[in-house]
Amino acid sequence: MDGNGKAALGWMKGRTTRRSGALAAAAIAASLLGALGGCASGTDATSASESQAIQATARASATALPSWRDSKSRQDIVNFVERVTRQGSPDFVPPAERIAVFDNDGTLWSEHPLYFQYFFLLDQVKAAAPQHPEWKNDPAFKAIMANDIAGAAKEEKRLLSLIAQVSGGMTVDAYDKTIRNWLDTARHPTLNRRFTDLVYQPQLELMNYLRANGFKTFIVSGGTLEFMRPWSERVYGIPPEQVVGSTYGITYTMRDGQMTLVRGPKIEFINDGPGKPVGIYRHIGRRPILAVGNSDGDLQMLQYTMAGAGPRMAVLVHHDDAQREFAYDRKTSIGTLDKALDEAGKKGWTVISMKQDWSQIYPAARP
Amino acid sequence: MDGNGKAALGWMKGRTTRRSGALAAAAIAASLLGALGGCASGTDATSASESQAIQATARASATALPSWRDSKSRQDIVNFVERVTRQGSPDFVPPAERIAVFDNDGTLWSEHPLYFQYFFLLDQVKAAAPQHPEWKNDPAFKAIMANDIAGAAKEEKRLLSLIAQVSGGMTVDAYDKTIRNWLDTARHPTLNRRFTDLVYQPQLELMNYLRANGFKTFIVSGGTLEFMRPWSERVYGIPPEQVVGSTYGITYTMRDGQMTLVRGPKIEFINDGPGKPVGIYRHIGRRPILAVGNSDGDLQMLQYTMAGAGPRMAVLVHHDDAQREFAYDRKTSIGTLDKALDEAGKKGWTVISMKQDWSQIYPAARP
Repeated sequence: MDGNGKAALGWMKGRTTRRSGALAAAAIAASLLGALGGCASGTDATSASESQAIQATARASATALPSWRDSKSRQDIVNFVERVTRQGSPDFVPPAERIAVFDNDGTLWSEHPLYFQYFFLLDQVKAAAPQHPEWKNDPAFKAIMANDIAGAAKEEKRLLSLIAQVSGGMTVDAYDKTIRNWLDTARHPTLNRRFTDLVYQPQLELMNYLRANGFKTFIVSGGTLEFMRPWSERVYGIPPEQVVGSTYGITYTMRDGQMTLVRGPKIEFINDGPGKPVGIYRHIGRRPILAVGNSDGDLQMLQYTMAGAGPRMAVLVHHDDAQREFAYDRKTSIGTLDKALDEAGKKGWTVISMKQDWSQIYPAARP
Repeated sequence: MDGNGKAALGWMKGRTTRRSGALAAAAIAASLLGALGGCASGTDATSASESQAIQATARASATALPSWRDSKSRQDIVNFVERVTRQGSPDFVPPAERIAVFDNDGTLWSEHPLYFQYFFLLDQVKAAAPQHPEWKNDPAFKAIMANDIAGAAKEEKRLLSLIAQVSGGMTVDAYDKTIRNWLDTARHPTLNRRFTDLVYQPQLELMNYLRANGFKTFIVSGGTLEFMRPWSERVYGIPPEQVVGSTYGITYTMRDGQMTLVRGPKIEFINDGPGKPVGIYRHIGRRPILAVGNSDGDLQMLQYTMAGAGPRMAVLVHHDDAQREFAYDRKTSIGTLDKALDEAGKKGWTVISMKQDWSQIYPAARP
């Protein structure tokens, strides 16, 4: 369940040391994450004759996906949507059951060189420094201030303690404002764009296409709820109530004479790996028929989706475009795709090549 | 947070003994519950002139509520809906923000003489008896088999242990089937109808009316998720993903050679009292503008709803109809309404008199 936590810290350590921290530390670290990126090639199990029969309509629908090249991946998706929405078809799925789940990091937006939520958390520590003179000689803090991420990661426990100190005890409203302010101003270190501009244009089109076909779209991410909700509706068209994520302990308690929701210092639920089917069960209560991920952290979500009866589809995004985005799969520690890649090959899941299947990666930048 | 758990056990003990069990026991007990019933009189804070201005349209809309008598409660609700949906009005609320939350037990269906989920759990223990010969001399088990509920409750710890043994370790699918089978066959001990026929017809109309006006309706109940979801869509029109409830620990694990979701023996989150605003925050992520409850277990949900900016409305159902349903408020231990009743009076919240405001309580029975 904390595979990504380990990966994240592994990355921060420049991949030189192995992870050793306490469970609590692992839990906090694991909250920062999402997924692990993928490659291979496969197909949704549509019969050849059925494929032919629906090709005409499929082509028409595909105009809804302008940033998708006319590839097998797009055809797989369009075929699937046509199959489950065609009235009277044996594969018809009633709209209420058309649940589509998307991982976030690496599936809907970029995740390199570090999960974006992690950039936020490090910036939070920096911003809180003036209120914490006692941090002055803390080695993790000193490393962060020197932008020495690998150095900070060597002080893992101290680092996680700093992160916990920054937001534990904040009201959820104050924390929400902090996130919104950061998203408005922070920029990606190498791509130099706002983080919410680093979402994938083809996926925005895919989610719109699915919703136009009666699907309900959900995010199912290892990231925390409150980090995604402020922008999921505006950017993805996914309302807050359809965001499933990791959760901190929250209590309803008295603060400044008013009852209010206050954040605890600890992660309560890690919605990653085997946590994703649990999060889906608790939040959605129906098994999805379509799941899209990009990493080993999504494997169980894809397996859980595919284990149900009737037509269903599993999709992986493969990060193979070093020029326009990033290229990584088995050997990275942020968004590692290894086991899920093998399984996609064996099971014939659809694997999107970002390089070949997408004509555009990001939307036009906001002014 | 375990106020209702205490109440439930208090009732089972025939109100003669006070509760004494361990925290774990309290947590399990508290899961069985929902709310605490109410009475008083108040009004939504609509100005007189505004009321007059919208009375014509309000009257028309009220035809959507045929089981509601033409009372102040109905007028309060219709006025509120008209205010927040009128384009260009300063009180206009965009559809995405029209979140309405309903408690379940005592608010959408009956809860006397015992929370219905509790009847299910006791029947489960009886049904599992053949697989548990070791229970033979257990005093709690013997009391249950003799339908001596007060006697069983005297053996609180043993009783809760039996309940935990029955479903802990079941797959969620198997548990779901058990619930569906029970709901199909079990009947209320005094009203002699299926439990899902003991929902309130006026509330079904209210939820339809709200949805027709762009509201998204949610259940926010102390009962557990899996007990409500199998029928919430068919009966209430509320899909599983809009049911917020108490949750058991669930793990995704290997069972008979397949990965599957398995129930743990323990409650992880109690969605009651101060837990309700937490459940709303985590599941919905927006503050409701309309909350309907019937007991002190709903007080914090109502307070949280009313503490936001803009137009908002809090409603209590008062169980004052001994002839057609049950009459109880401050002195009952199932659905106690005491503090919330006082607060409704002070704050002018709308209080529904089941006796006076509803021309019909239950829908026609299914064949």
